[in-house]
Amino acid sequence: MMSFRRFLHVKTVPKLYCNNVDTLKYSSSIPTHELLTKLNFVNHPKSGLVHWSPLGLTMVNKISDIIRQRMDEIDFEELSLSLLSHNSVWRKSGRWDHSSELFKLKGEEYLLVPTAEEEIVTYVTNNITSYKNLPLLYYQINPKFRNEKRPRGGLLRGKEFVMKDAYSFDSNEENAMKTYHNVVGAYVKIFEDLRLPYTKAEADSGDIGGSLSHEWHYIDETGEDTVYTCDSCGSVSNVEKTLSYPESTDENIPIEVSVRYFTTEDKSTLICAYYPTERNLEPKFVKNEVPDLDLDEVDQDKILKEFSNEDTLISKKIIRIMDSRLHSRANFPDFPITFINRSLITTFTDIPIVSAVENEICGKCEEGQLHSQRAIEIGHTFFLGDKYTKPLECSIDFPVNDKGQVERRNLIMGCYGIGVSRIIASIAEINKDSKGLNWPQIVAPWTVTVVEAKESKDFAKFYAELNQNAVDYRLDNRPKVGLGKKIYQSALVGIPLVVILGKKYPIIEIEVRGKRYSDNLAWKELYESKDFEWKYDTDEQGNDIKHYVHQDGFVQVIKALLKDM
Amino acid sequence: MMSFRRFLHVKTVPKLYCNNVDTLKYSSSIPTHELLTKLNFVNHPKSGLVHWSPLGLTMVNKISDIIRQRMDEIDFEELSLSLLSHNSVWRKSGRWDHSSELFKLKGEEYLLVPTAEEEIVTYVTNNITSYKNLPLLYYQINPKFRNEKRPRGGLLRGKEFVMKDAYSFDSNEENAMKTYHNVVGAYVKIFEDLRLPYTKAEADSGDIGGSLSHEWHYIDETGEDTVYTCDSCGSVSNVEKTLSYPESTDENIPIEVSVRYFTTEDKSTLICAYYPTERNLEPKFVKNEVPDLDLDEVDQDKILKEFSNEDTLISKKIIRIMDSRLHSRANFPDFPITFINRSLITTFTDIPIVSAVENEICGKCEEGQLHSQRAIEIGHTFFLGDKYTKPLECSIDFPVNDKGQVERRNLIMGCYGIGVSRIIASIAEINKDSKGLNWPQIVAPWTVTVVEAKESKDFAKFYAELNQNAVDYRLDNRPKVGLGKKIYQSALVGIPLVVILGKKYPIIEIEVRGKRYSDNLAWKELYESKDFEWKYDTDEQGNDIKHYVHQDGFVQVIKALLKDM
Repeated sequence: MMSFRRFLHVKTVPKLYCNNVDTLKYSSSIPTHELLTKLNFVNHPKSGLVHWSPLGLTMVNKISDIIRQRMDEIDFEELSLSLLSHNSVWRKSGRWDHSSELFKLKGEEYLLVPTAEEEIVTYVTNNITSYKNLPLLYYQINPKFRNEKRPRGGLLRGKEFVMKDAYSFDSNEENAMKTYHNVVGAYVKIFEDLRLPYTKAEADSGDIGGSLSHEWHYIDETGEDTVYTCDSCGSVSNVEKTLSYPESTDENIPIEVSVRYFTTEDKSTLICAYYPTERNLEPKFVKNEVPDLDLDEVDQDKILKEFSNEDTLISKKIIRIMDSRLHSRANFPDFPITFINRSLITTFTDIPIVSAVENEICGKCEEGQLHSQRAIEIGHTFFLGDKYTKPLECSIDFPVNDKGQVERRNLIMGCYGIGVSRIIASIAEINKDSKGLNWPQIVAPWTVTVVEAKESKDFAKFYAELNQNAVDYRLDNRPKVGLGKKIYQSALVGIPLVVILGKKYPIIEIEVRGKRYSDNLAWKELYESKDFEWKYDTDEQGNDIKHYVHQDGFVQVIKALLKDM
Repeated sequence: MMSFRRFLHVKTVPKLYCNNVDTLKYSSSIPTHELLTKLNFVNHPKSGLVHWSPLGLTMVNKISDIIRQRMDEIDFEELSLSLLSHNSVWRKSGRWDHSSELFKLKGEEYLLVPTAEEEIVTYVTNNITSYKNLPLLYYQINPKFRNEKRPRGGLLRGKEFVMKDAYSFDSNEENAMKTYHNVVGAYVKIFEDLRLPYTKAEADSGDIGGSLSHEWHYIDETGEDTVYTCDSCGSVSNVEKTLSYPESTDENIPIEVSVRYFTTEDKSTLICAYYPTERNLEPKFVKNEVPDLDLDEVDQDKILKEFSNEDTLISKKIIRIMDSRLHSRANFPDFPITFINRSLITTFTDIPIVSAVENEICGKCEEGQLHSQRAIEIGHTFFLGDKYTKPLECSIDFPVNDKGQVERRNLIMGCYGIGVSRIIASIAEINKDSKGLNWPQIVAPWTVTVVEAKESKDFAKFYAELNQNAVDYRLDNRPKVGLGKKIYQSALVGIPLVVILGKKYPIIEIEVRGKRYSDNLAWKELYESKDFEWKYDTDEQGNDIKHYVHQDGFVQVIKALLKDM
């Protein structure tokens, strides 16, 4: 009986498909990462490490192909950089000693790349021969590494993850901004393709640096990021970037005040940041006011000691910054330094320097109220300028006139990430329902599970048609597993459709599992013009739950059903 | 003019295509790895590290897809294991301390996987639930790492390389051997698909271990391996596995003799291996005779000291092994130990324990002469037995009768590698000619370079047809690069065909570059039945070098020409 199946290359479910599922009592409260492990999409040999099983690897490949298509459309070229990088370029960029999450190899000669700015800049420097080569636009989809001390959530925060990272090199800021916006456009398409509801938030550039960046999130209560949306101007930003004013200030309510000290890079100025004790000071907001603030120097005693020597104090300056939430009757701490000349002190008042909380006033429009949501970051776009091209000396001669005079300039760079591993966890989380996982057809491990209620040579024609029409099906041919269990498990794994070949063949039953992402259902249109046998059942809400289609039309019906899923 | 090209998604050459070539004076004596770098297939940021440029990455993907197809055909499933592995499993297998080429991470908690036996065994142990799951057959294609101290030849021996590694788990030795032979069958197909002339040689199992293994080589004078072929029985083996007898022994020719000492694992026996001083002793051959020989103990003084204590000597044994090349009149060194009881000494004579040299007698058939060739290893197949499943406790209950009695047995394993990076270097090396690289069409970065001798909107139809027929072409649209140079560089990069769109359009010129791998040319058959305009030029040997084909038939002609390349 297997002969025609082997002859026709009938595709079957993976060998260990649902092998461990009998011990799983499904409930929608099972954490998504446990479900992904139990159903063998992934295995975690150690916390933070990932083995992609056949089921999960298929999804990595499908998502990667969607990203490829959209990046190719905006003329980015795919390459694949070494996963190892030598310390020399990281020392030049200054990141070798500044990031605690680098995975360095024994001997500290190499590291495992977390992102590839250093290497791609060196690559471009070595290969560019003329400004006419610009723009240079590259991306890669491959593993990245981060020495994450507390891995969590399976695929959400691991030591190893699959990432699409893209890099752009332009001749000037204007062209670089055009590229940045092209990438933003591609990202919108990618997340739409993936049926992933996203939020694009202004973000802090963090370790990577640069002057403009956006985080791409999907909103989910299990998320570890917080984003604020203004109900007036609509701006969305990461909490680390959200400036806010108090909802109201009542001078009659006493406020306990704390202070944190900073210095400038050149140690010439003491900055005293005053803020409500019960709130969270955001040092980057202080740096907004004093651009040459040294964020790395946090030792309070050391800073104050620098400013307590009366001999040198005369050449130093002092800036006091008062958070917007403070008023004159607030309970300020004593000033730690004895001064002779009070004219050395500058005071800024009404500056937002603490993290926003729910309902505070938007720091942008100064009108709307801010509302917070938990979110998971799935992408990041950075405008980097010359942050990497300057220290790594990635420059080229540009003509300044027709006489052959040239000017050497650094290339202007952007970088753009999408977390592929994370996207799988995110899509799983969003679409999970009372029956199990539920994948959009574009990323599902396969789109149609076939089960046979009896054995018959007649089915050969059915499989031949599936193969000819490139339907992404798998036959569940596990011996001694009942029909009901096969259908139940296909739903649990999240496959959009189940096809049952039974006694009514050539009438084929199709059970609908996948979520509909559109109201205007393609199959209804097809139903109107059908020229083959086709009936269907609906549930109480009128939704189609099962179709009975003659072999002559089933491929058309399957394609129409999948179109909206 | 670009409008119709963008509209039709006309595919163009990569941005930095031949960017550095003007400084390259091509000659076939340029080492292949220099050519691959200069033409920007790969970049080496440091010796042993590899950046795959768009040109090279395309080839990695094409070769990977060929391997996938052939592995899928024999029911292996693709997965992707973590590139990091925790030391715990490596300590259990005994490989953590035994291999100097492991890339360990700072802190020595993790390493970068060179091969994945430990992890796949753990994966199977964690996921198998019944002997009925067997066989379990997996492969992956991803980066591997080796802390290579002396990287060489660009892609030939690097710190990082792309490898297909496959692993099989069977219920017993008989089934495992069937699987082994299935893989051998798939390898033959893969190397034939790749037009890669190969030699399958009996091999030593090296660090990976196991009882049977074959190396898959291609013969090339730049190779770093040596294989011997017997001119009588035809057996092929790696030098580390080639047993040999002397061509002749003449007792009148004096032989200088050296000795190397070994002990058994339990230190009960001293082994003295005597061999001609001018030859290379192969300790593994000595171990063939004394299976419990300790290969790790090499300190000669320490070994002798163990056997020079007269009190304990009485309980020890001594084995002398004489290489086949020695005769009784050879000049033996003094025996280092004073003995009381000479009956403790056993002597084996006429044992092959040195590496073979050209023209010696085959140790297998004892008739033919051995002939050596330099070779490059491109694949390896190992029958591992329970070498890994035993220490890592990968076992399952098997029924022994109908009464439900079971017996717990270790799974029987095989592993199978193919070096993808190496294959690219090998194919380049074999096919390189007086015009440059020359790729078989199945792996070429693309198969047809299109150049335009003039601009014309009429060409839209031509590109539309290329796209519709999925021809793997690229338009060389570099501005200010002459037609001749474009054709020359396409040949240099090794693209099989160049198509020239010129003044004679809709007559299209096709220049033949690719090597023919068959005498029975498909295009000649098509030519007989053509119903469109088609002429061609031949060279002095009668080979077709240029075709002039009407637009109506050019896709058919291109496909027919490529078929034999």
